Amino acid sequence: MAEINVSEVKGEVNYEEAMKEFGIEDISGYLKNMDKLPLIYRRHVVFAHRDFQQIFNAIRHKKRFAVLTGFNPSGPPHLGNLLFLKQALFFQSCGAEVFIPISNDETYVFRKSESLEKATKNAYEHVLPDIIALGFKKSKTHIFISTKDPRIYELAVKLSTKTTFSTIKAIFGFGNETNPGAIFYSMVQSAHILLPQLEDFGGPKPTVVPIGIDQDPYMRLSRDLAEKIGMLKPSSTYHKFLPGLQGGKMSGSKPETCIFLTDKPEEARKKIMRAFSGGGATLEDHKKHGGNPDIDVACQYLFSLFEESDRKIKEIFAGYRSGSLHSGDVKSYLAKTVEKFLKDHQKKREKAKKRIASFMLK
Amino acid sequence: MAEINVSEVKGEVNYEEAMKEFGIEDISGYLKNMDKLPLIYRRHVVFAHRDFQQIFNAIRHKKRFAVLTGFNPSGPPHLGNLLFLKQALFFQSCGAEVFIPISNDETYVFRKSESLEKATKNAYEHVLPDIIALGFKKSKTHIFISTKDPRIYELAVKLSTKTTFSTIKAIFGFGNETNPGAIFYSMVQSAHILLPQLEDFGGPKPTVVPIGIDQDPYMRLSRDLAEKIGMLKPSSTYHKFLPGLQGGKMSGSKPETCIFLTDKPEEARKKIMRAFSGGGATLEDHKKHGGNPDIDVACQYLFSLFEESDRKIKEIFAGYRSGSLHSGDVKSYLAKTVEKFLKDHQKKREKAKKRIASFMLK
Repeated sequence: MAEINVSEVKGEVNYEEAMKEFGIEDISGYLKNMDKLPLIYRRHVVFAHRDFQQIFNAIRHKKRFAVLTGFNPSGPPHLGNLLFLKQALFFQSCGAEVFIPISNDETYVFRKSESLEKATKNAYEHVLPDIIALGFKKSKTHIFISTKDPRIYELAVKLSTKTTFSTIKAIFGFGNETNPGAIFYSMVQSAHILLPQLEDFGGPKPTVVPIGIDQDPYMRLSRDLAEKIGMLKPSSTYHKFLPGLQGGKMSGSKPETCIFLTDKPEEARKKIMRAFSGGGATLEDHKKHGGNPDIDVACQYLFSLFEESDRKIKEIFAGYRSGSLHSGDVKSYLAKTVEKFLKDHQKKREKAKKRIASFMLK
Repeated sequence: MAEINVSEVKGEVNYEEAMKEFGIEDISGYLKNMDKLPLIYRRHVVFAHRDFQQIFNAIRHKKRFAVLTGFNPSGPPHLGNLLFLKQALFFQSCGAEVFIPISNDETYVFRKSESLEKATKNAYEHVLPDIIALGFKKSKTHIFISTKDPRIYELAVKLSTKTTFSTIKAIFGFGNETNPGAIFYSMVQSAHILLPQLEDFGGPKPTVVPIGIDQDPYMRLSRDLAEKIGMLKPSSTYHKFLPGLQGGKMSGSKPETCIFLTDKPEEARKKIMRAFSGGGATLEDHKKHGGNPDIDVACQYLFSLFEESDRKIKEIFAGYRSGSLHSGDVKSYLAKTVEKFLKDHQKKREKAKKRIASFMLK
C-alpha cells in the first residue's frame, strides 16, 4: 500500500515532520521481520516507534514484556479506541502481558465527566465489558480502575519527587486556573505506564505503549521518570489517527464524531451513511474526476480497521480514486461490515459482563 | 492557672493576636460546661476553637461525631505528637469516632524521608504501635496509611476540581520548583480531614480537628472544600505549642529537640537534664530573682503533659518564679515522671504490636 504510507498522508498531521521533530523512527524495519502482522501493521497505520529494539528482542527471545494502553472512560469505547486495543491484542499474541489502566480520575479532573462517580460507573458498565469482549486472555491481562488500586497513587507519589512543577507545566500547559488534580494526573499517568515494572508484577521489564503522536510528550516524561527510579524506559509505537465521522478529530465526548461499540448496528449504519466523503461534489463529477480515499472516512475505516483483505482494499482505493466506485458504494460496504462486527461484538459483551472480576488487577 | 493563659503567653507566638487574625474564638465558654476535662483543657493549653458548637451539641445530645488527627511519620512519635493524640483520646471518651491518617506521602513529598518505603516502614513499625498503646478503643478507631487506602486518593481527586492552583499556591507557597506530589498533597490532606464524612463511615457528621495555630490555613481550605461537596465544615481546636528541648520549635526530624516515645527512659532523663532552662544565670541569681516557668522547658512539659495535679503545678510554678525551686529540682522531678511514663508506655507498645491489623481502616 505504498500510496498510503506515512510520507503521503494528507490532512492536518504531517507524520514525517512529526517523526523528525520528536526523534522517533520508522518501524518498517522491525515489522518486515515479524510474522502474522495484523492489517494496522501491514498497512503502516502503525508507522513509527521509539526504542522498539527491546520489544523486538523480547518477542524474538520469548522474554517477559508488557504492553500498556490506557483508557479514558469519558464515554463508551468507540472505533478510535479499537486501534489501541487491537495493538494490545497483537502484542499479547506475541507473548506480552497486557495492562489496561482505566483513568476515571483523568476523565474527572479534566472535566470530561460531571462527576467522578459517573466516570467510574461508565468504566465498570461499558468500558470493562467492551475490552474483555475483544478477546484478551484472562491470565495475561490486568485491567484496573485508576482510583481503586492504591499502588497507582503510591507509585505516582514516588515519581512526583523526581520532577518539578515547571517541568510538567511546560509539557501540559498548566496555569493558575488548573486544578491540583489535573496537575498531579501527570504523575498518575506516568505511574500507569510504569506499573508493569512494579515488583508485584515481576519488576523491571520492557513495556511498549501504543500511542498517537500527540501523546509523545507524556511518553518522554515517563521515560525520564522511569530512569530516575531504576525502571526500564518504556518503548512506544505511533499510529495514524482515525478520522472522526465528520472528517475532523474523533472524540468520545462528541457522539456525532464516532461510532461507539454500544451503538445499535442500524444506528451505526445511519452514522456511516452520513459520514464525510472524499468524493466528487456530484455523482457526475465523481465519475469523471474520481475521489480521494485518503480523506474519505469510509475508505479510511475500511483501510485501518475493517477490510482484512489487502487485495480488496487496494481495489477499493483504486476504484474510488478513478471514480468507478462511488461514496455510496463504499459506505454501504463499510456499513455492512460494521453492522456484522457490532452484532458479533455485542453478543460477546453480554458474556464478558460475567467475567469482569477475573480481569481486574490482582 | 490564670497566670499562664492565652493573653500572657510569652515568646514567639502571640496567641491573642493570632486569634484575631484567624477569626477563631476562646474555647473557655464551652469547656466550663464540660465534665472531667484533662489537664490540657483545664489549663488552657487548648485555648481556642472554630465552629465548636456542633461538636458541643453532638457530645451533649450523644450524636455521632468524629475527631481526626493526622500523623506525619518522619520519625517515631514524640511528646509533641502526644498533645494531639491526648485530645483525640479525650473526644473518644466523649463519644467520638477517632480517625488517624498517617501521611507517609506527606513525609516523602516534603522530603522528610529519603524514600517513601522508609516513611511507610516507620509508620508500621513505630507510629502504629505507639498510637495503639495510648489506649484507643478498637471499635471506634480507624487508623490508615495514606497511600494504602484508595478511598483517600479518590476523595482527593473529587476535591481537586473544586479549587485551583492559584488558591493552593497562596496558602502553601508553591513555586516552580515544587514537586507535583507536594502540590497535590494539599488535596490529600483535605481528604484526610473529610474522610470521616464518606458514606463508608456513615456520611456527613461533625468532625473536630485538634491543630496548632500554624495549621489553620489548611483547615480553612478543608472547610471551603467540604461545603462544595456537600459535607459539613469540620471544626477545629487550637493548642499552644510545646517547646522543643532547646527552647525553640520541636521537630521530629531533629532528634535533639524532642523526646521520642521510643527513647530509653535513661536517655530521656539525660535529654531533660540538658534541656533549656528558664532559671537565673547562676544558682545564686536564681535564688535571688527567681526564674520564668513560662519559658522553662521542664516547667512547660509538666504543665502541658505530665503533672496531673493542678495544686502541684501551681506550687511548682510559684516556687520556680520565686526562686525557691531550682531548674535542677524541676528537671529531676520531670525526668522521674517521664521515665515512669516511658517504661509503662513501652510495655504497652509491645502488646500493641499484635493488635495493629484490628485498628486499620475498615
